Parts: sequence; structure tokens; C-alpha cells
Amino acid sequence: MKVSLNQKILSRNEECAKKNKAFFKENNVFCLNVISSPGSGKTTTISRTIKDLGDQIRIGVVEGDIKTDTDAQKIRDAGGEAVQIETHGACHLSAEQVYNAIKALNAEKMDVVIIENVGNLVCPSAFDLGEAARVILLSVPEGDDKPIKYPGTFAEADTVLINKIDLMDYIDFNLERVLADIRVVNPDVDIFQVSATTGEGMDTWYDWLMDKKNKG
Amino acid sequence: MKVSLNQKILSRNEECAKKNKAFFKENNVFCLNVISSPGSGKTTTISRTIKDLGDQIRIGVVEGDIKTDTDAQKIRDAGGEAVQIETHGACHLSAEQVYNAIKALNAEKMDVVIIENVGNLVCPSAFDLGEAARVILLSVPEGDDKPIKYPGTFAEADTVLINKIDLMDYIDFNLERVLADIRVVNPDVDIFQVSATTGEGMDTWYDWLMDKKNKG
Repeated sequence: MKVSLNQKILSRNEECAKKNKAFFKENNVFCLNVISSPGSGKTTTISRTIKDLGDQIRIGVVEGDIKTDTDAQKIRDAGGEAVQIETHGACHLSAEQVYNAIKALNAEKMDVVIIENVGNLVCPSAFDLGEAARVILLSVPEGDDKPIKYPGTFAEADTVLINKIDLMDYIDFNLERVLADIRVVNPDVDIFQVSATTGEGMDTWYDWLMDKKNKG
Repeated sequence: MKVSLNQKILSRNEECAKKNKAFFKENNVFCLNVISSPGSGKTTTISRTIKDLGDQIRIGVVEGDIKTDTDAQKIRDAGGEAVQIETHGACHLSAEQVYNAIKALNAEKMDVVIIENVGNLVCPSAFDLGEAARVILLSVPEGDDKPIKYPGTFAEADTVLINKIDLMDYIDFNLERVLADIRVVNPDVDIFQVSATTGEGMDTWYDWLMDKKNKG
């Protein structure tokens, strides 16, 4: 019974994800779904991206959190437009919540929509939101064993950002191991080493984003 | 239908949690359920605790991970006894999984059983495992906004360890804000500032643990 209900929830989500995908395609909007543990730097990465690319492209953000709208506020402070979804306990965003949010955001006017999922490295990866690409963040302080411990999440990524590389000097983190372990489950994924705080490496991420957006 | 099924799952879990609680009481075992984001330092904290207290008390560990038994190996390397649960995708431990694990661990011979839950700051907090106390870890690099963004998890804590305080010099982290925000949802919780890597502050945690254990 548990399985059949989960299948029902997933299949309802899948239907709505298709609707989102059609909306993005129709309006020529490139959509990213950003997933990570709490505190990996999703909001900081998105804010910096808006500051640095905001004069070239119009970026809208859908923020997902259990509680508070502080992340949407941060995006607005960075000059972006944002709609906050408070999930009130739910551990992931659903395609239906995103559908309502992109309507509220007037996403048809955007070039890029970035969905910041609820901070959780497990559950969000099971829910397609209709995105064109999925971005997984892994921050250096989380440790180099995360790709082997959460293989399903890394297997579904289109790109992985290894964030907070400015902290590499203070933390025992085997970068070679991380790169190798990600490639075991996802051989062709694009991986970038960045610090959203200092800006280091962010240009490689921007090049990827602009290239993917232009290709649609 | 979703709600009633979730209630069924939770009520089945509750029944099994009672069985675990009775087992721990009968055998005079003090049980902790340790919850945090991925990479907050749960395994390092438990390993150091075993190294430092292992000559005074016998500690057994139940490890929960989506995949791999690397954490159980680390516990054994630290001199502890451990049983690994691989959840194969599930985002939290259930009381039933723990029941099977404590049997395999011969937990009746232990003074303390520490359950390291799946790395996830959301879902595990809804599942009682029969523990005597719940420990939430928050690491400095995750940021000072986590208590307001995950209030339900912090509300259920008996103690909070603020870990990786050795990184405080390199990260913008408002400790006063964190302490105040935790107290809003959980006024009487015990909070300790530690570094499981350097050992700083760990004695305060050990005092708490030994005191609670002795009181049963």
C-alpha cells in the first residue's frame, strides 16, 4: 500500500512536471532545480549569479523552505525577483507548488528561472519539477564522503558545484576522491569548483549556465 | 488519503518505538538519537566520544545511511561496536530498523547506545526511535539561519551541539543569534559549543552525557 501510494504521488507530480516543462519551453525560459544539504550555499550562489549576470539576463527565483521567507528576501536584496514557498514541514518541493510559484513570479518574462529546493540531499531528488537541468551543490565542509553516501542524488545531476573551496585550506577534503566518486555514478556530469563567497571559479559556472540557456 | 496513510506509518513506528524504549529501560541502556544535516560531524563526534569515554562506559552505535557502511567502519576504527543500517533511499531511520539493529548489536550489554540517523535535518525528526534523548548537531559552516529555517527539528531536541567551532574564524556566523533562535522554539534545551575535530568543548558534552546516563 505504501508503494502504490508513493507511486500515485510521484505520478501526480510527474504530470504536473510535464506541465511546467511545457510552460518553460513555450516561453523560452531555461529552468534550473538546485538541490543540496542545508547550508551548502545555495542562496549565496544564486544571489551572486544574479549580481554578476543580472545585466545580461533576467533571472527569477522560486525559493523553497520549511519555514521563513528569508531566502527570498536575500534574492531581492541581490536585485532578483523571487517567490517564496513555505512547505510547513514537507521535505521537498513538488511540481504543483512550483507551478503556482512560476505563475506568481510571471516567469514567462524571465530568461532563467532558478528553483532553490528545500535543504535536503535525499528527498528532493525523487521529484521532477520540470526543470531543464538539475544542479547539485556539495560544500567542502560537508566532507568528501558525500557522493558515495548519497549516490542517487549525484547520479541525477546535470552539473555539480563543489562550493566553499575557499575553506579547503582549513579542512581535510580529498578533492580527487570526490571527483572520482561522482564520476562513478555520473560519468558525463559537468563539475565546477567554486566559492560563492569569494567569487573564485564562478566564471566557469556562468559560462556553463549561459551556454545551456542559449542552447535552450 | 495521504494523511491517513502517514498516520498509519507513524503509528506503526510509535508502537515499535515503545518496544525499543522498554528494551532500553529493562536493560538500563541510555539511548541517544543523533540528527543533523549531511556533513555536520555526527560520525566524528561519536568516534571522539568513544575514544574519550570508552574506558568508562561501553558504547554501541547504530549507523544509518542511504548507502555504504563506511561510518560503521569509522566507529570500529575508534574502538566502538557498530551495526550499519543501509536504508537504500529512505531518508530516515524507523524504530523497526533500530529494533533489529540493537538485537544484532547485543545492545543489552551496552551502557549507552548512540543512533546516528541518516544525514537529513527534516525527515528523521518525525520518527521516534525509542531514544531517551535527542541530540541535534548544527555545524558552523551550515550558517546561522538554520534554527529559524528548521524550527520543528530544533524544537524536539534535548541537546544541541554546535559543532566545528574551530572554523568560526573563517566564517561569518552569528553565534548569539543562533543561541537566541534555538531558545525561541526550545527554551530549556542544553546547548554546547564543540569541535569534534580539535576536541574543544567536548568535555561539556561528556559531562552532560554521563550525568544523563547516570540519572537513567
